[in-house]
Amino acid sequence: MKATIYDVAREAGVSIATVSNAIRGKGKISPKKREEILEIVERLQYQPSMIASALTGKRTYTLGLLVPDISNPFFGEIARAVEERGQQLGYSVIICSTDNKDERVERYISLLEQKSVDGIIIGTGISDASLLERLSSRSVPVAMIARDLPSADVHKVVIDDYLGGVLAARHLLELGHRRFGVISEKHNRERIRGFCETVERSGQALSPCGIRIFGDDDQIQDGGRAAAELLELEARPTALFCCNDMSATGALRAAKARGLAVPRDISIVSFDNTILSEVCDPPMTTIAQPMEEMGRLVVDALLQELGDGGAKQRFVLQPELLVRGSTAAFVPEEQKNA
Amino acid sequence: MKATIYDVAREAGVSIATVSNAIRGKGKISPKKREEILEIVERLQYQPSMIASALTGKRTYTLGLLVPDISNPFFGEIARAVEERGQQLGYSVIICSTDNKDERVERYISLLEQKSVDGIIIGTGISDASLLERLSSRSVPVAMIARDLPSADVHKVVIDDYLGGVLAARHLLELGHRRFGVISEKHNRERIRGFCETVERSGQALSPCGIRIFGDDDQIQDGGRAAAELLELEARPTALFCCNDMSATGALRAAKARGLAVPRDISIVSFDNTILSEVCDPPMTTIAQPMEEMGRLVVDALLQELGDGGAKQRFVLQPELLVRGSTAAFVPEEQKNA
Repeated sequence: MKATIYDVAREAGVSIATVSNAIRGKGKISPKKREEILEIVERLQYQPSMIASALTGKRTYTLGLLVPDISNPFFGEIARAVEERGQQLGYSVIICSTDNKDERVERYISLLEQKSVDGIIIGTGISDASLLERLSSRSVPVAMIARDLPSADVHKVVIDDYLGGVLAARHLLELGHRRFGVISEKHNRERIRGFCETVERSGQALSPCGIRIFGDDDQIQDGGRAAAELLELEARPTALFCCNDMSATGALRAAKARGLAVPRDISIVSFDNTILSEVCDPPMTTIAQPMEEMGRLVVDALLQELGDGGAKQRFVLQPELLVRGSTAAFVPEEQKNA
Repeated sequence: MKATIYDVAREAGVSIATVSNAIRGKGKISPKKREEILEIVERLQYQPSMIASALTGKRTYTLGLLVPDISNPFFGEIARAVEERGQQLGYSVIICSTDNKDERVERYISLLEQKSVDGIIIGTGISDASLLERLSSRSVPVAMIARDLPSADVHKVVIDDYLGGVLAARHLLELGHRRFGVISEKHNRERIRGFCETVERSGQALSPCGIRIFGDDDQIQDGGRAAAELLELEARPTALFCCNDMSATGALRAAKARGLAVPRDISIVSFDNTILSEVCDPPMTTIAQPMEEMGRLVVDALLQELGDGGAKQRFVLQPELLVRGSTAAFVPEEQKNA
């Protein structure tokens, strides 16, 4: 017969709450007592994943997911991955979209708590420090996906954004480009840093990076506007690095509207690898994020905390360069018509 | 001072529940008494929208939205429109995605009820008749968006799907096409009917429509597979009508993979007008759905029911033909190289 938390408690001569605390590393227990309890847990092969329900009987088997914009295919695909993994493990998922409005973040987090979700996954940028602190200290486990916040003590599943920027820059440098434009929403500083530092370190004589940061209300339109500005510069870039597929789609449009051919006249690298980068014309060279794996990992991290209350985990996944049709070797203007 | 339901009740000499019933047309009240109460409501300029909260004090200011696949940009944009309108009116929106799995529909509807939403918006196909009946009889108001079910007594915001099919067929007939393929998921019978009946009625000698119905697990892939089958036919279609942007994107890919140029060798009309139809190559001629208006109307219908318990409403919006680059006049094979 399978051991229960009561078997462990009886054997150790403590309450089940103490067993739970010992396993989760919480509460005031002497190190000696804790070790003793954990030995019994191991000997009886007690599965700690049953603790939470045994203790509280209150699990709702519901997870909340907060995203900045559900009409951005990146978050649509993240939501699908979270939903899929949740269902595999018996959890329903409730999605809330803040539509890029900061003031809705806290409202939705409170709402999800009121609705008694077992865990909250946040894919939205949070700038309010006090909100952050309150988040870390909540009783409901919290995890962040696709957005990083070093100061928050919560599970995190992110990609190496800096590396993503490096990969984009290396690809364009190898193609012979020397004048670059960067288009990014405000959240993606690491991608820009990776890109710009790689360009600077390449030892080439470079024009300064033209960097345009936009809001995030309509990213396709914002990306297009930013690209139009860069393409009007006297020494216009021969390659653009866009922080996501939506802004890259806008940049592509802006380039075409100016009569520039992609990649002949200008190369574009995007970020994400959503469906947008596949269907656009030409298909976009992009830095791919492993969205399915990210969704899986974030659900697993939350459920593991629910099960055994383990330490906060931070996963940093590797982005990959996917070369498609929007990038090509730089050809100086005077050689184009030769 | 603004009149309250208590003022009306006092004046009419009835309970506030009776006032509420009179306004909502429910409960056992004589027609004469009802008229008397409504006259007082009017005279005191009482705003019935305050009834629900006055009576129950239980409103949660939360709406639930159920969609089949949140990674389909159509539902991403519908979700955004619902969220936007909800927030304008003080309501938060909880989104659930069934990922095209029928068995998740009922689970999510129950979940939304448990979470005490004030209303549920359903954009998912429901085939189970008994589920439908239970839905109509629930205490929480229900509305359907983008999916119709004649037998369900709930609010509905749909488009004239039949007309959409007609518009697509007319456009292709005017371009001189005579051999057509139709690619559709199972939910879109009216679009197919509108298309095929228009083709049949055109008086032209027509090859029979080649119709391919696919599941809805991966619509891009399914659409591509269906298109590949149609394009292998000996008398292959010179024009395709795809039931949504996702399957059209797959069809576009399949055509290119066979070395066919769009629209030179084959024309494609899609349906929805999501971002996918804008960014693909060539940009897709599509039957546009007014997604923003649909989201607004469905929220308004639900909130109106919450306010004054009015009758179920059914809105049928008009789709529009948007001509882009994926359709062109039919040119017989022998004239192409002339």
